[in-house]
Amino acid sequence: MDAVNLKNLAKQLNLSVSTVSKAFRGSYDISEKTRERILSLARELNYQPNPLASSLRTQKSHTIAVIIPEIANNFFTLAINGIESVAQELGYHVLIYITHEDEAKEISFTRLLQSGRVDGVLMSLSKGTRDFSHINRLREMALPLVFFDRIYEEYPTTRITTNDFESGYKATKHLIDQGARRIAHLFLSGNLSIAQKRKQGYLQALDDHKIKRAEKLMVACGNDADENKKLIKACLKKEKPDAIFSSFEKLALLSYEACAELKLRIPEDVKIISFSNLETAPLLNPSLTTITQPAFEIGEQAARALFAALKKNRTAIPDKHIVVDSTLVRRKSTE
Amino acid sequence: MDAVNLKNLAKQLNLSVSTVSKAFRGSYDISEKTRERILSLARELNYQPNPLASSLRTQKSHTIAVIIPEIANNFFTLAINGIESVAQELGYHVLIYITHEDEAKEISFTRLLQSGRVDGVLMSLSKGTRDFSHINRLREMALPLVFFDRIYEEYPTTRITTNDFESGYKATKHLIDQGARRIAHLFLSGNLSIAQKRKQGYLQALDDHKIKRAEKLMVACGNDADENKKLIKACLKKEKPDAIFSSFEKLALLSYEACAELKLRIPEDVKIISFSNLETAPLLNPSLTTITQPAFEIGEQAARALFAALKKNRTAIPDKHIVVDSTLVRRKSTE
Repeated sequence: MDAVNLKNLAKQLNLSVSTVSKAFRGSYDISEKTRERILSLARELNYQPNPLASSLRTQKSHTIAVIIPEIANNFFTLAINGIESVAQELGYHVLIYITHEDEAKEISFTRLLQSGRVDGVLMSLSKGTRDFSHINRLREMALPLVFFDRIYEEYPTTRITTNDFESGYKATKHLIDQGARRIAHLFLSGNLSIAQKRKQGYLQALDDHKIKRAEKLMVACGNDADENKKLIKACLKKEKPDAIFSSFEKLALLSYEACAELKLRIPEDVKIISFSNLETAPLLNPSLTTITQPAFEIGEQAARALFAALKKNRTAIPDKHIVVDSTLVRRKSTE
Repeated sequence: MDAVNLKNLAKQLNLSVSTVSKAFRGSYDISEKTRERILSLARELNYQPNPLASSLRTQKSHTIAVIIPEIANNFFTLAINGIESVAQELGYHVLIYITHEDEAKEISFTRLLQSGRVDGVLMSLSKGTRDFSHINRLREMALPLVFFDRIYEEYPTTRITTNDFESGYKATKHLIDQGARRIAHLFLSGNLSIAQKRKQGYLQALDDHKIKRAEKLMVACGNDADENKKLIKACLKKEKPDAIFSSFEKLALLSYEACAELKLRIPEDVKIISFSNLETAPLLNPSLTTITQPAFEIGEQAARALFAALKKNRTAIPDKHIVVDSTLVRRKSTE
């Protein structure tokens, strides 16, 4: 008897090889009835298609990796929704790797990906990343890579962010327009270029409005929530800011808690604005004024940039920085 | 010249095959120096390890799939964190599939997984799932499968949920204790067993306190937020409940919006309690009383149950229902 393979199955069923192949790929292009006929014969002949063998033939895994710093974060879940909507449309599988802001984990994941498990990578850097050699190695391996949000600025690929400098400027100017003069800035310590740009926007807005910069009003936060809240409370107590511009959603929520614990009223004593994709921002007490990033769109565009390269069998992706605008949504926390 | 393979590399470097293999897997068990020696020789000899080929040999992909109804949802992001913490510890890759509550997508994903891409599956059913033949087929394929939260009750595997009946009872009793008598119940329509159990807990609490059940106070919600808000507003206007027990976080947030639009005060006019893992529950206006599920732990336990089977090369997983308790956290919305 001949070896059982797609070709033989197709012949016995009087179907095309492509139709039989579709049955095993779970495609909707064929009827349920046809699919059942094919799978039933396959079972009878004990034939099991092997996607790994098929990947080996085509050198394609039809899988992409998404490397992100955290997942319990509204920006990233919305971005994943955007990525995944494109992946589903094109029939790709999505592996998720969470670095928890840890450079060592990021390095470990990029090593794993060097071995051909995925066709491409979408990545948002961890706060802890200080050295980029693990990422440069992906280039040596010619693994297609697109950055979104927390980008590696010098890497020659497509990088997608919001307008961080302008948004930082706009947030700070909004606080100044609302009467604030001692504006604290909460940011994530580390090398993230988006954190630096937001801070530059903040500083430029202060300069343009002849407000003196004060180092003590700039609070570099880390990974530990309790520690961050202590830092925020210390700043509120000692420096008595009349407003806070937070460049990271979680720091705004800690600021709410810190104000409650210090019996400071928002917005009467301290106005607060934050980068945030928080669904409950309008329902907070008081509702939170936000700089809202188009997170879904950022994920979607990053995925499209990657898949466009994969489709053309290209490992080089256009070297460009795509900037999508964020929106300032005024609510009660800055009234 | 001999073919370049792990064995030859190891021989030339005077290292064990297992050490050389570790270098390609990105393991931390070997020093960076040893790793560099190995990779440098591999580059020189143009040797590229192929994980797909290696998977083909071992018939293992070291990858699991997680199928969930949505990702922009605090329960599921926390559960993924739990799953992923175990997967990282054991060196597994995690594929994420989001069904968006759509049975057709769920069927399509389970078909894709029938072809050997993953070693096992963790799954939480979509609200839309009405027929289980696609899941039963995974059993025929002997693909190890563990359910969490939204379980398929009749499937003989490990199923992990919170104590849904008791939690529904406790939530309702809490509202009764706080003086409520016309208690609306918001739930997701469909066949989800957890929704049914929460509802049964609600009904039992009403019965035990001699409060008459009223069909019109039970609101079956769907996928569309605007439509759901309309249903909630209609119930608030026509049925004038003095409390709401929501079995799904998003419906509680819509209830806040509905109350604001109808100028109903929480908790004076309507008390609200909800199943929720919302980080901002304490910061809402007013703070939300919740039934909080141990989401991280549920994900972690589901992953451990699956990996225990994979480690022993078993496709059959103990047929049992693991129940972890939720916590009622009292806040201002039910005062």
